Formats: sequence, structure tokens, C-alpha cells
Amino acid sequence: MKRYERLTEEITASILSGLLQAGDRLPSVRQTSASRGVSPSTVFKAYYLLEARGLIRARDRSGYYVLRASQATLPEPDDLSSAAAGRHPVDVSDNVLQVLNATLRRDMLPFGSAFPSPSLLPYGRLARYMATTVQQLDPWGSIDDLSPGDPALRRAIALRYLADGLTVPVDDIIITNGALDALNLCLSAVTRPGDAVIVESPTFYAALQSLERNQLHAIEVATHPREGIDLRALEQAIVQHQPRACWLMTTFQNPLGSLMPEAKKEALVRLLTRHGVALIEDDVYGELYFGANRPRPAKAFDADGMVMHCSSFSKTLAPGYRVGWVAAGRYTRAIMRNKLTTSLATAAPTQAAIAAYLAQGGYDRHLRQFRQTLALQQGEMLQAVARYFPKGTRATRPLGGYFTWVELPAHIDTLRLHRAALDHGISIAPGPLFSSSGAFGNFLRLNCGHPWNAEMEQGMATLGKLMAT
Amino acid sequence: MKRYERLTEEITASILSGLLQAGDRLPSVRQTSASRGVSPSTVFKAYYLLEARGLIRARDRSGYYVLRASQATLPEPDDLSSAAAGRHPVDVSDNVLQVLNATLRRDMLPFGSAFPSPSLLPYGRLARYMATTVQQLDPWGSIDDLSPGDPALRRAIALRYLADGLTVPVDDIIITNGALDALNLCLSAVTRPGDAVIVESPTFYAALQSLERNQLHAIEVATHPREGIDLRALEQAIVQHQPRACWLMTTFQNPLGSLMPEAKKEALVRLLTRHGVALIEDDVYGELYFGANRPRPAKAFDADGMVMHCSSFSKTLAPGYRVGWVAAGRYTRAIMRNKLTTSLATAAPTQAAIAAYLAQGGYDRHLRQFRQTLALQQGEMLQAVARYFPKGTRATRPLGGYFTWVELPAHIDTLRLHRAALDHGISIAPGPLFSSSGAFGNFLRLNCGHPWNAEMEQGMATLGKLMAT
Repeated sequence: MKRYERLTEEITASILSGLLQAGDRLPSVRQTSASRGVSPSTVFKAYYLLEARGLIRARDRSGYYVLRASQATLPEPDDLSSAAAGRHPVDVSDNVLQVLNATLRRDMLPFGSAFPSPSLLPYGRLARYMATTVQQLDPWGSIDDLSPGDPALRRAIALRYLADGLTVPVDDIIITNGALDALNLCLSAVTRPGDAVIVESPTFYAALQSLERNQLHAIEVATHPREGIDLRALEQAIVQHQPRACWLMTTFQNPLGSLMPEAKKEALVRLLTRHGVALIEDDVYGELYFGANRPRPAKAFDADGMVMHCSSFSKTLAPGYRVGWVAAGRYTRAIMRNKLTTSLATAAPTQAAIAAYLAQGGYDRHLRQFRQTLALQQGEMLQAVARYFPKGTRATRPLGGYFTWVELPAHIDTLRLHRAALDHGISIAPGPLFSSSGAFGNFLRLNCGHPWNAEMEQGMATLGKLMAT
Repeated sequence: MKRYERLTEEITASILSGLLQAGDRLPSVRQTSASRGVSPSTVFKAYYLLEARGLIRARDRSGYYVLRASQATLPEPDDLSSAAAGRHPVDVSDNVLQVLNATLRRDMLPFGSAFPSPSLLPYGRLARYMATTVQQLDPWGSIDDLSPGDPALRRAIALRYLADGLTVPVDDIIITNGALDALNLCLSAVTRPGDAVIVESPTFYAALQSLERNQLHAIEVATHPREGIDLRALEQAIVQHQPRACWLMTTFQNPLGSLMPEAKKEALVRLLTRHGVALIEDDVYGELYFGANRPRPAKAFDADGMVMHCSSFSKTLAPGYRVGWVAAGRYTRAIMRNKLTTSLATAAPTQAAIAAYLAQGGYDRHLRQFRQTLALQQGEMLQAVARYFPKGTRATRPLGGYFTWVELPAHIDTLRLHRAALDHGISIAPGPLFSSSGAFGNFLRLNCGHPWNAEMEQGMATLGKLMAT
């Protein structure tokens, strides 16, 4: 990253975190140049970019001012999630699947969607890489590289780990059909039917569905909306339920958006290692940070190979390519074997296309732009929540990703709201999807991954009206 | 298929089945024209093609003669497989996985491989289709078509069923990550850990691995090397073990190559329906018939939706694309749900490429040539078996696919032979891989899916020598 880009990101983070508020005057170019030890032209470039992105505005002769409000006006949900911790045999009903199906329809306003807008992803560019690579693909490679995956892609992923300060051997990386495949392979490597697995509360519904299919028990542990799972409650649950694994999203958790601080991640890994509990770390949103640097995953603190770090390109580059991976530590051999016996391997052409795209440098440039866009859209979404949703509404303000978790007044039933919203062409993800305990009846997850426009604004107003009826 | 092509295929089948023997004189062009009611030029074209393929030769003025011997000189293995029927908790050892890994190395002679030679598949042509389709792919499609798969591909598959005389609703077709994914999804739709599942004896090792991973019990039932599973033994096993499902390959079974006659397939479906046992039909070799028509699968006789018909493009077009499917009958809904919760969907670009390739007509032309090549290679392989392997050796002579199942004299241990062969750069698939009972110690599966050459001939001679030591 160049100097002016770094400066841009840092000021952006200060605005998004609320440190700089709307109306605040930025230090002058000369002051910033001196205090940062960079040239005035570097500062000019950064200010220019911030202005182009709509974050600051120059006023004639008086300097640069922060333009948009941070969203500090909306309170956040309660400190800790309210679901009763306990052992639940998982039963994600067909109703829930119907809710999900509605979120996939493109004629719906996509507030309930799990994906960012395809319009924000470099499909055309990636497709051009694929058009080239697929015609150069070694036909024999598709047989003898079957599993664990394309060697060039695995090397590229290992290099990205290295750039983020993690040393992950290429041999520990297994390419999968998206992160969901990785997570399922991890689960079957470390559990047997009837075992207990710890998840956050609330948690990603796909985790609950996988547990259900594998006949596992979900132990839902209270989770802080900013800082992730409560370690004290976690240890109690470990002692009480003797789980085989934890399945956690430590960075920009779905649905909360919580980001576990690095020291807490380190403590988490120590705690789990002490108890011999494997960590399946779902880190698919880690690249979508709004700050200056990628938050390190818990895997960074894993000396004993107990952490299976799962991620993918589905949230950042190409959902339809279904390319994910796991860095599996001591479980690598078991997972490789599971991969061979479940689907043999991941498709070769999509892997080769992504490897070529990563090698030729478009990815980081795309990600920088994408993060910035997501941050701005989050702002629009939270302003609309504040504008249209009832008094007493709370919402998380994550430092990355594209979700916000919204707590509505207690009397509002979001499953009912979901059905009413469908009639108005609006999808939402109701809170009860995110727990097997039936909790979160007055919560919902909103997607900020789509370009803001008048129709979205109108949709939020409609939701607000439906809540009032 | 044009007239001359049909005639070519029919005569080819007569030669391969041994009806026409080496040295036999074909009827003259005029005779054939009259007896078949086709024009002389149609017969000329057919004879020309047969000559080009090395099956017949014109002798000056005296007509056309069959050139190559049929392989009727090698006896087939015993009528019924010898594994003790019984209930086995499955334990496919790591040794077996090591055997499999050796078969994937491209520096090995590929007699143990499960794949045909990539040189026989139209990679370049398919890649050109993909280069075009991927750049036209609707980015939104990758989200809202996630599961059950690309609509154009599902329609194309339904049309191929129709052409083969089966009516399969498009809505019953779910695209999967190769047939192995389909088979696993079927298994989890109809079984719970501890259940019994019937398989053929011998059976494809991937079936055993899947049963093992799902903690299921394999009931291995005696199977005829030409006509498939023994129905009387099957019914006894059903009554005794109360299985939840059968996993069978009714057409060109791996490893036997057996083809269950259509009447027997019909009886099989009746039997299973009467007992309420689901059939998972693995039909990945069905397109590779040497006769005139595609053998219909058991699914053709399925009035009650009890048959899950699984297949793929991995053996016929593109192993590395990992595109398969299941036509799932009454289990469609359960399997769609399993697909969503295991890997969400199959990669979009590979599906679109295959759909375009199927639509534009290259597939059937490729398949005709490929079948012919496989039939000829089978002939070479069986001649080499007869030439180099010890007296008393038997081998199946399948009417399609690219395997032969070889029974060696009882004292030969094919696991030992495998280790010795590796040192000579030769892979084989030893018999014990194909059972969880430890049977088939003196059997092996040979792959006839690779172009015959001097090195292959030499490799077979080396194997023969190793058997003698």
C-alpha cells in the first residue's frame, strides 16, 4: 500500500469509528505533513481521495471538514446476547429454509441476503482470467492434482497468510467447495454423532444446519456484540458439556459483526488448547475490514495446530465459483481424506482462474475499493435504521463485513415481519434463524452489501411502517 | 445417429461380442444393402469406418474380413463373486489410500487408475466453450441459481434422459460436485449412523469409504461378473439385515464391468420397492457402451421414485470439472437441502461451460469416437493379459466402460504385487480395495482407458514376470 493510501485508510477508520465526527475540521495539509512525516503531496492525495469518497469536504479557504455523521447515535444491542446457554439438539425447520429461499430471489430488496451485490465484485475481470487459464490448463493436472487442490492457488493463499503475519505451510492448505464445504469437512474430522459443539449466540444458520445434519448438539454461548464470545461462559460450557469443537467466527461474526480483539483471540486459543478442544475458525469476512489492517485470526496464535482456519473467495470475489479452503493444522490428514471421500476434489478451472487473478495483482486493489464501499453502505443503512425503525431500536456497527444485527422493541416478532415484508418485495433475515433455542424473536440481520439507492431507502421506510402495525 | 453410423456400431458390437470372429468374411456391400434396406453408399461408408478403426480389412476383389480376434480366449471369473456375504463395519485402511495415491501419479503406468486418459477427452474444445460462457455469465445468476444448479444444464440432462427413453422431471435433477458428491448426498438423505447398506461384492472402494465415514454397515452381496448382483442373495440380505438403501452400479460396474440385463433391472426395482429399500444407482459409465444403444438404467423402471440415479461428466468429458448430478425421485427435497447445507451449490462457470458444450452438439460425436477407442483398448489389454499373465488367469470382458476384473491363480497376493509393481513404475488396483471383508486377495482391476503403446505392452509383460516370482 502506498503512503497516501495508508493515510486515507487511517483517516477513514477514524471517521467510521466515531473518533472524528461530522463537522470536525481535519488538520491542515501542512500540519498533517509535519505530524506524519510525509510530503504535502501525499496528504493532498489522501484528502482528495477522502473527498471523492464522500467522507470529507473542502470549504473555501477554511480547510477540510468531516462530512458524514458516524453512526454513534444508534445504541448497540445489549452487552451480551440473551439466548439461554444450553445443550440443544438442532432442528432447523423447513420454515427457516423457506426464509432463506426468499433471500435468494433477485426481485426482492436484498436486506436478508447473505451475499454482497455481484455489481461490486470484479466478475468481468476474473472471467477474462478464466478464459485464458482454462485454455492453458494441463488436462493431466485435473487428475493428479485432484486433492488437495491447485498447487499455484495453495501457494498464493500461503503467501497471503504470510503477508498478514501468519506462517501456514502450503501442505496444510486444502482447497474446498467454498468455506461451507471446509467447515463441514472440519466438523466430520473432529466429531461423531451425539457430540457437543460450541457456537456463538447468535450464530450463522448454516452452522446450525450442519450440526443438525451431523446429529450434533449445539451449545450456544453468550457473545458480545463488539468483542465476540464470552470467554468465561465459554470455559463453563466446556467444563459442563465436554464439546469436541468450537465453531466460531472471531472476525466480523455473522450476524453480529463482532470483532474479537487480538489479545482475546490469543486467550481463546490458550483456553481451548488447555482443554483439548479444536477450534473451527470461520473467517470468510476477515478481508473486509474498514480499518488500516487485516485483523489477525485466532489461527495466528495457534502453536499446537488446534485451529482449523476456514475461508473462501465467495464473499470477496466470486460466490458462484465455490472456491474456499482450510488451513487445517494437525487435522490436515484427516480432512484431506474426508475431502477425497466426499467430493474427490474441487473443480480445477475455477481454482486456476482465481490463482491467476491473485498472482496478477488485481485482488488487493479490488479489496481496497470494496471495503470502502461497504463502509459507506453501512453508514447509509444505519442512518436508515435510525430514521425509520421504532424508538428503542439498537444496531451493531461492525468494523468490517456487511451485516448489522438489529434489536427491535421486544413486542416485534421478526418472523411475522419477514412474512409481511415479503408481500412488499423485501427480504430480511429474522433473528430466530440464528439460534436453535428460539431466541432472538425481536432481532433481525440486515445486509449492507448492496449499493444504496432510493429503492433501498424506500424499502427501509416500508419496514419501519410494518413494524408500527 | 445417421444410418451408416448405426450400421457401423452394430457390426462393431458383433465383432466385440465374438459373434463375428477374426477371419470371418463380411457380407458383400450389395448383400448388406439388400438385407438392411439401406443404400450401397451407406454400407460403403460403414465398411470404410470399420476399416479405418482397424476392425476389418478389405482384401483385393474378395471383400471385407474381420481383422482382430475377439477376446473369447480368456475365461471369465467364477460365476458369482466369492466374498462371504455378511455385515461389516467398514474400515478402509490408510494402506488402501496409499494405493490410491500411487494411481494418481502421472509417472506411473496407469493400470490402477480410475480415470480414462485425458488425451481421449475433448479438453480443448470444452475449454473454448468455457472461455466464451464464463464471460457471458450473469453475475446475479451465481447467487440466485445457487442450488439446485444451472437451469440450462439441468434441462440438457433431462433431454438426454428423454432421448434414452426416460422421463425425468427437470425439478428432480440436482447438480453436484461430481457423482461422488451425489452419492454421498443420497446416502445421508436415507441413512443414519449404524444403518446397513447393501453393496455389490466386489464394489467400488469409494462406496466403502463413504459408508465408513458415515458409520454405516456394508452388506456385501454376491455379484455375477456379467449380469450384476444376485437377486436371490439380495432378497435374503434384505430380510436378514433390514438395510435402508442399496448402492449399486447396474451398468458397467466398477470393478467387474458387469451389465445387468434390462429385465433383471426391472425385477431389481420391483424387489426393492416391495421391501421399501431405496436404490442409489451409480451410473457413471452408462454412456460408455460398446453396443448400439445406451443400456437403460434401473431408474427407467422406477414408478415410485425409489431410485436416485447418479451420474456425472467426470468419466466421459472432464474429470477436473467436478460436475455430476442426481435425479432423486421422492428424495429430491431432502437431497436439495443436504446440498445447501454441505457445499451450498456446485461451481457456476463449469456448469455453464458443460451446458453450452452439450447444447452445441459435440458431446455425442465425442462419445461415439471415445466408445470405439475404449473397445479397441480393451481388446489390447485382454490380449496382453492372455499373453503375459499366468495360466489359469481369468478376466471379465465388459460390454462398456474401461475396466477389466482379473482373477489370478489363488497363490498370488495382489497387495504384494502392487508394492512390487510400484518399484517398476506400474500402478494396479489390488482386489482387497474392493471389499471390506478382506476378500479378493488374488484379484486386480485393470484400466483400459489409456491409448495402447509399447510401454503399456512392456508393463503388462513386467507384471506377468512379477507374478511368476
